[in-house]
Amino acid sequence: MLIVPEREIADLMTREAAFAAVEKVFAAMAAGDAYNFPVVREAIGHEDALYGFKGGFDRAGLTLGLKAGGYWPNNIAKHGIINHQSTVILFDPDTGKAKAMVGGNLLTALRTAAASSVSIRHLARSDARVIGMIGAGHQARFQLRAALEQRDFEKVIGWNLHPEMLSNLEEVATEAGLPFEAVQLDDMTRADVIISITSSFDAILSADQVAAGTHIACMGTDTKGKQEVDPRLLTRAQVFTDEVAQSVTIGEAQHAVGQSLVSESDIAQLGAVINGAHPGRTSDADITLFDGTGVGLQDLAVAAAVVDLAVERGVAIEVDF
Amino acid sequence: MLIVPEREIADLMTREAAFAAVEKVFAAMAAGDAYNFPVVREAIGHEDALYGFKGGFDRAGLTLGLKAGGYWPNNIAKHGIINHQSTVILFDPDTGKAKAMVGGNLLTALRTAAASSVSIRHLARSDARVIGMIGAGHQARFQLRAALEQRDFEKVIGWNLHPEMLSNLEEVATEAGLPFEAVQLDDMTRADVIISITSSFDAILSADQVAAGTHIACMGTDTKGKQEVDPRLLTRAQVFTDEVAQSVTIGEAQHAVGQSLVSESDIAQLGAVINGAHPGRTSDADITLFDGTGVGLQDLAVAAAVVDLAVERGVAIEVDF
Repeated sequence: MLIVPEREIADLMTREAAFAAVEKVFAAMAAGDAYNFPVVREAIGHEDALYGFKGGFDRAGLTLGLKAGGYWPNNIAKHGIINHQSTVILFDPDTGKAKAMVGGNLLTALRTAAASSVSIRHLARSDARVIGMIGAGHQARFQLRAALEQRDFEKVIGWNLHPEMLSNLEEVATEAGLPFEAVQLDDMTRADVIISITSSFDAILSADQVAAGTHIACMGTDTKGKQEVDPRLLTRAQVFTDEVAQSVTIGEAQHAVGQSLVSESDIAQLGAVINGAHPGRTSDADITLFDGTGVGLQDLAVAAAVVDLAVERGVAIEVDF
Repeated sequence: MLIVPEREIADLMTREAAFAAVEKVFAAMAAGDAYNFPVVREAIGHEDALYGFKGGFDRAGLTLGLKAGGYWPNNIAKHGIINHQSTVILFDPDTGKAKAMVGGNLLTALRTAAASSVSIRHLARSDARVIGMIGAGHQARFQLRAALEQRDFEKVIGWNLHPEMLSNLEEVATEAGLPFEAVQLDDMTRADVIISITSSFDAILSADQVAAGTHIACMGTDTKGKQEVDPRLLTRAQVFTDEVAQSVTIGEAQHAVGQSLVSESDIAQLGAVINGAHPGRTSDADITLFDGTGVGLQDLAVAAAVVDLAVERGVAIEVDF
């Protein structure tokens, strides 16, 4: 069995590798070659922690396993380690034997960033020049960095509930040689691409704060009750997602579907666009919306990729298990 | 993180340690201190394998994690390894970090044997002298060996669909210095304790093949559709189980409950007997029936015990994860 510790991931994994892994597994999902298992998510009644398992099997990539872990809200204060803790365990689909154990913390950030990035590559207008960020936390940095590689962006604009955190976005923009502007939500009409990455439980962005032709990736809503945008925005948009079943229950679309504004059949898999089975954006005036809910197969895909890289570089720890 | 490979388990784990771990976690479940998560079980569409996760959290023992693995029916023929493959992964409930990874194959056999053994200790008549086995496969050896430690048994009788396999039971009886007799099902009335451990999908034992005063542990039924005994036996018996929710859906009681012969409220947790919250057997004439369905917490309990033993003996592999 191979072990790739958390501390090795930063040196091994690249945004390019994460992008390729996520794009490929989204395509496999849409082709029916890969599927996610039911998600287990439990409030364990200890340290206010949420813990669970996201598993899946990719028959095309022969990747089987799960991400186990969750959210320990007291970790930073009590132990000086990050609150989100996760581990990916891969199994050999031919035998059921454990194959690899991989630190899942940085990988989770990279696979989430890769998802909106894949949506931009396949759904945003090719002439997109302004990117708007809603949310400026730790994960927003990852989303922005990955997004900037997908188009010839010329400017980053950003809004956050706590404006003092916008420096997170400005730093990434500066690294990429781009100007950054802190804006009001009404100014998001100037963006060609918008990424929302918050932990909001109420709509932040209204439907008329998004211009025709925009691509918006809603990346923050992954639980019942969370919400980032006005549900009416989904009626104006072509809606895509990683997994339809999650989109309508725990994703951004839960609200529009709950209010009967859109139905499950209105929502397409991003993987179908990647595969060419769905045309994707149909005109430069369309709004495209990607509801990124986060699936276990993304975690398995990036973990499998990093195991290959660790073996190549000779840093995987081999244990006779 | 600590790793205890499969090859170390046989030297480390004892039947006594497995018994103590399973008894303790059954008690914690009944006291409301430990609970199992929803089980994920998937036919993955590759190698005819069944794969999934059984997780749980024991707040009393501070054991959190899961058993991952399943059944690969072609393993023996294709790879020369056993068909059941499982791995236990333990997490630190204070932080969510991975704590240990433990080979789960032998542990699964030991924890299953411990469960019927715990039921015998707490439910069988103290003067039980004849033990009857229904089923004579690989797992039956484990069940018998553990059971023989619980009473002063003087004889083993056994039945199996394929009688040539009864030598498995005879060997264990001989090891323990006891006579073995191959019998017909009607002869099971001579047994004071019966263990059924088959993979049957039809009732094998009828209600009148069990004498008054017997304790029977039904250990084979762990899936919808499986069945070992006549559902009417449950109306004659005081029924106990590891977990009521599993007993009525995938355990032996699924049939009696489905036919409205017994209701969920008729079934008690074995842990309540261990805790003294339930009187258990109320007379020497009662039939007591333990419906052993198998829960993730058993796996976590024996894995946590073996990690402690491995650390004590210096054979746990430590990996800076």
